[in-house]
Amino acid sequence: MSKLRFSISMSLDGYMAGPNQSREDPLGEGGEDLHRWVFGLRAWREEHGLEGGGGDAVDERFAEAWSTDTGAFIMGRNMFGPVRGSWDSAPAWNGWWGDDPPYHTPVFVLTHHAREPVEMEGGTTFHFVTDGIESALEQARAAAGGRNVTIGGGASTIQQYLRAGLVDEMQLHVPAVLLGSGERVFDNLDGATRRFTCTELVASPTVAHYTYVRK
Amino acid sequence: MSKLRFSISMSLDGYMAGPNQSREDPLGEGGEDLHRWVFGLRAWREEHGLEGGGGDAVDERFAEAWSTDTGAFIMGRNMFGPVRGSWDSAPAWNGWWGDDPPYHTPVFVLTHHAREPVEMEGGTTFHFVTDGIESALEQARAAAGGRNVTIGGGASTIQQYLRAGLVDEMQLHVPAVLLGSGERVFDNLDGATRRFTCTELVASPTVAHYTYVRK
Repeated sequence: MSKLRFSISMSLDGYMAGPNQSREDPLGEGGEDLHRWVFGLRAWREEHGLEGGGGDAVDERFAEAWSTDTGAFIMGRNMFGPVRGSWDSAPAWNGWWGDDPPYHTPVFVLTHHAREPVEMEGGTTFHFVTDGIESALEQARAAAGGRNVTIGGGASTIQQYLRAGLVDEMQLHVPAVLLGSGERVFDNLDGATRRFTCTELVASPTVAHYTYVRK
Repeated sequence: MSKLRFSISMSLDGYMAGPNQSREDPLGEGGEDLHRWVFGLRAWREEHGLEGGGGDAVDERFAEAWSTDTGAFIMGRNMFGPVRGSWDSAPAWNGWWGDDPPYHTPVFVLTHHAREPVEMEGGTTFHFVTDGIESALEQARAAAGGRNVTIGGGASTIQQYLRAGLVDEMQLHVPAVLLGSGERVFDNLDGATRRFTCTELVASPTVAHYTYVRK
């Protein structure tokens, strides 16, 4: 059955991005530290067209599972880029990821500003959804053809789907990083996380992986 | 060398106690869930005069290390009890822990209200410190006789010592619990955690243990 899920890295003090996101710092100041555990892994290197690499088997499993059986992604406007307001101010902005983004599926971007779809290399197409999170989920499910829908981020988008009770599974990867400030994952949730139960906790010496499903 | 350290349980969403602390709920609503990982352990049961028990070797190690080589504890007024204002309103309040508290050393309680020391069974004596965190640390170090000083909590006390740059080591035990609200550990820190580096991350299927030392 198609699930709505996410799989994100979070600092031990609860942030999924650092403060002051910019073109130079897409993950905010220090935000890249959250993802350092994946950079040497075979799964991540293959995804980015690089050979070699390899790490702890547990970490490899979760790096592979980031997009497990995902047929479509959903992300917030801020995760797609630093452009604010109308797209006219930066009509050529096609995300942070170059010509071949690591999604390889349709990606539904939540925004208040309409824009035509943008087809990238490698199977990624960005669709811009202006009528809310339920509509984005509906369109993503239709596009996913029975496979899972994965929320890419950021924190605000994840919180909106959690508050609406729509998330089926969540994976948190927690390296021993302390960011001090940034975008908090578990905030503004009005108790929405009470509906989840942990199905697995496992760690490498670098990062602990928590998996939850909705009760 | 005598270190200032703490070893606490924290929910994955960052809380070391639930909301609405009261006489009935000393750890706040849901707060007991944070400590469930220790209840079956041999180290915890021995501490509480119970036989048997036993759990994952990693968890046993950290449960034993909670008070490793500790010669004195420091805690905040709210961790000592629900009494607010002058002690006259509840002169017989001697903590949550009965006649034989699990400290077995001098314990320095931060408060704005002076009170004579209270000697309990089993080696615990509560001293009430009204002239600030540096004074409490100085007194605790003198009492500890070269052994470590452990901050028991709560969050506000830990944050004060972190902001002052006085903490040498911290251990965070993170079960897969999501509390939703309560007392956040990593808040109001003004970047004080940048000074720490992780020396060990290890987990059982129940709880991940993060150890940090000051750089």
